[in-house]
Amino acid sequence: MQPTENPSTVPHGAVPHGAVLEVREPVTLQSGETLQRSHIAYTTHGTLNAARTNAILVCHALTGDQYVTGRHPITGKAGWWETMVGPGAPLDTDTHFIICANVLGGCLGSTGPGSPHPETGEVYGLNFPLVTIADMVDMQRRLVDHLGIERLLAVVGGSMGGMQVLQWAARYPERVAAAIPIATSARHSSQNIAFHEVGRQAVMADPDWRSGRYMAEGTRPTKGLAVARMGAHITYMSDDALHRKFGRSLQDKNAISFGFDADFQIESYLRHQGMTFVDRFDANSYLYLTRAMDYFDLAADHDGKVANAFADTRTRFCVISFTSDWLFPTSESRALVHALNATTAKVSFVEVETDRGHDSFLLDEPELFAAVRAFLSSVVTLEGVSP
Amino acid sequence: MQPTENPSTVPHGAVPHGAVLEVREPVTLQSGETLQRSHIAYTTHGTLNAARTNAILVCHALTGDQYVTGRHPITGKAGWWETMVGPGAPLDTDTHFIICANVLGGCLGSTGPGSPHPETGEVYGLNFPLVTIADMVDMQRRLVDHLGIERLLAVVGGSMGGMQVLQWAARYPERVAAAIPIATSARHSSQNIAFHEVGRQAVMADPDWRSGRYMAEGTRPTKGLAVARMGAHITYMSDDALHRKFGRSLQDKNAISFGFDADFQIESYLRHQGMTFVDRFDANSYLYLTRAMDYFDLAADHDGKVANAFADTRTRFCVISFTSDWLFPTSESRALVHALNATTAKVSFVEVETDRGHDSFLLDEPELFAAVRAFLSSVVTLEGVSP
Repeated sequence: MQPTENPSTVPHGAVPHGAVLEVREPVTLQSGETLQRSHIAYTTHGTLNAARTNAILVCHALTGDQYVTGRHPITGKAGWWETMVGPGAPLDTDTHFIICANVLGGCLGSTGPGSPHPETGEVYGLNFPLVTIADMVDMQRRLVDHLGIERLLAVVGGSMGGMQVLQWAARYPERVAAAIPIATSARHSSQNIAFHEVGRQAVMADPDWRSGRYMAEGTRPTKGLAVARMGAHITYMSDDALHRKFGRSLQDKNAISFGFDADFQIESYLRHQGMTFVDRFDANSYLYLTRAMDYFDLAADHDGKVANAFADTRTRFCVISFTSDWLFPTSESRALVHALNATTAKVSFVEVETDRGHDSFLLDEPELFAAVRAFLSSVVTLEGVSP
Repeated sequence: MQPTENPSTVPHGAVPHGAVLEVREPVTLQSGETLQRSHIAYTTHGTLNAARTNAILVCHALTGDQYVTGRHPITGKAGWWETMVGPGAPLDTDTHFIICANVLGGCLGSTGPGSPHPETGEVYGLNFPLVTIADMVDMQRRLVDHLGIERLLAVVGGSMGGMQVLQWAARYPERVAAAIPIATSARHSSQNIAFHEVGRQAVMADPDWRSGRYMAEGTRPTKGLAVARMGAHITYMSDDALHRKFGRSLQDKNAISFGFDADFQIESYLRHQGMTFVDRFDANSYLYLTRAMDYFDLAADHDGKVANAFADTRTRFCVISFTSDWLFPTSESRALVHALNATTAKVSFVEVETDRGHDSFLLDEPELFAAVRAFLSSVVTLEGVSP
């Protein structure tokens, strides 16, 4: 398959964002709004085989980016899925071609609220149109077209990444051989929306947010964004994991201070999470991406039934959840599996026993790796993929 | 028993706070700090019998107050435990004398960070010393002395109120015939501390907080406090209850707006909770009371074992938890029951089946009412209390 939309790969901004695809034709979003010109920043790892059949698209979560593996250009740390992607890893770069793109609405090279409007040159801010999970996937589809890949061997991702996986399989079933949605759901729950709304209100309550115009006005809503991140971070961990990791241990002291310093390690940890997050993430992107997750509801988009989204699909699914994930609980994955079982889909379901909560998908979880490895191996055989 | 500390009941401030006890002697707090003069605002309901044996102390939760029943002077709404306290109710004002006091550190008539320093006349703000659950109970003990009550028939409360119940039973076992700790724990968990810390950071991030000097400077950190309340409110409800009550229903519209308005009912509800809360609660009190809860750890205060806190007790306990409470989960109540079973305490344990989460203790839960009613009835018989 050849590139379709007159795109070109161009350098973009001061930070090296991997490759950047410039989409020069108008892109109409689910809201009806149009982006006249847009970019999608991505990285690839491994080699595309001659038949172009070994490509795996990795979709990142809310605060992730295209640096799935390798050194991150801003934080200097390892990629966010170093355990999953690499030579000999479950997503093996020795045998597969791994693609990971910064989502539309993101802040690391892909077009988002922090990008300049192509006509005025002014930063979009809240003038950026709202994007949905479907819009993110549509942009990724353009990238996959650009790379000349007709059919992806697999689409893989956790949390918001898992939503993209489901959207890919629903929207482009013929282009997805295998789908691996992890720690996710076919719709954002009321509690999920509630936590996101608190985070957004924390950002918007910061006077330095300036109604979203902070870039133009030279401020940054770091305090509000840090509070949002702290609150969200709690939801990524389980009560048990917090108890095991921190308990009521004090931070660098032998007794409580009878004050509001970070007496407890958990407080110090959360403050650190908040402070480091604001160095690498844009506040408006946080608003847009949380909103995209809130709006995600596969059933609503398919006459009220998730199963309708996957009717007649030939895609093979491996649904993975974690026992201690209370943000995207196993019950959500089970509901998804039940819906898939009502279709022609081939479905595996793995519930990983762990006490580490939602973030388990990012951690060293041998059962997760084994499940992905085994499932992919069978797909490679069934699809007849050779390196 | 006669009043001990030269107290007097005085009017206090513009809002009618029920009765107010002025404590004229210095009160030394757990921190070592001293309050030279302090007040405790309270309400009573029903009649103290001649033998002074029918008194029940109700302890309120984090954002509660002394208006356990009857019209609230600020909100105009019914008291916070109208279902539990009243004529013919489980805590029956026809036969019992119910006492409820605003906690030390609170903001409805009892001394707290919003009170004037007795010497300078300036509002304390962050100069107010940190108070603990033990300090709150010590002030309540002074009130009970003042009312001439030697032994309370029962001490009852949920959440932070339950912590006070446990502290009463641990500190003054001979003065508590029966203890009913509901939806609580012998220590605040790491996750509990984490959520509180996010709330405090939300308040402190508000520039109108002015390092706690907002009253002197004529501002109010309403945005930060509203965000704190919104986040906390999610933890008071269960995922199931949110799903049943709100689901993904939209608020006064037929389709999503592709924007940041409150599209979903849950968003509108949370915003309302935040906005109304700031009208009735003081931001610094919120900081102080959350901190008091964080510091609560009965085991740490008793050589590492909760059981030590209740050694040789004659108090009868009725521990109550709710199946869907994930903030103070049933496992915490079970641990408490196990600790009590290692002592001389008589212990009943009731786990109420409900999907309404932590706030169940404030709601119409027939199984809760039946448990309290039956337990109190047996205590009345065993203690030989007559009206």
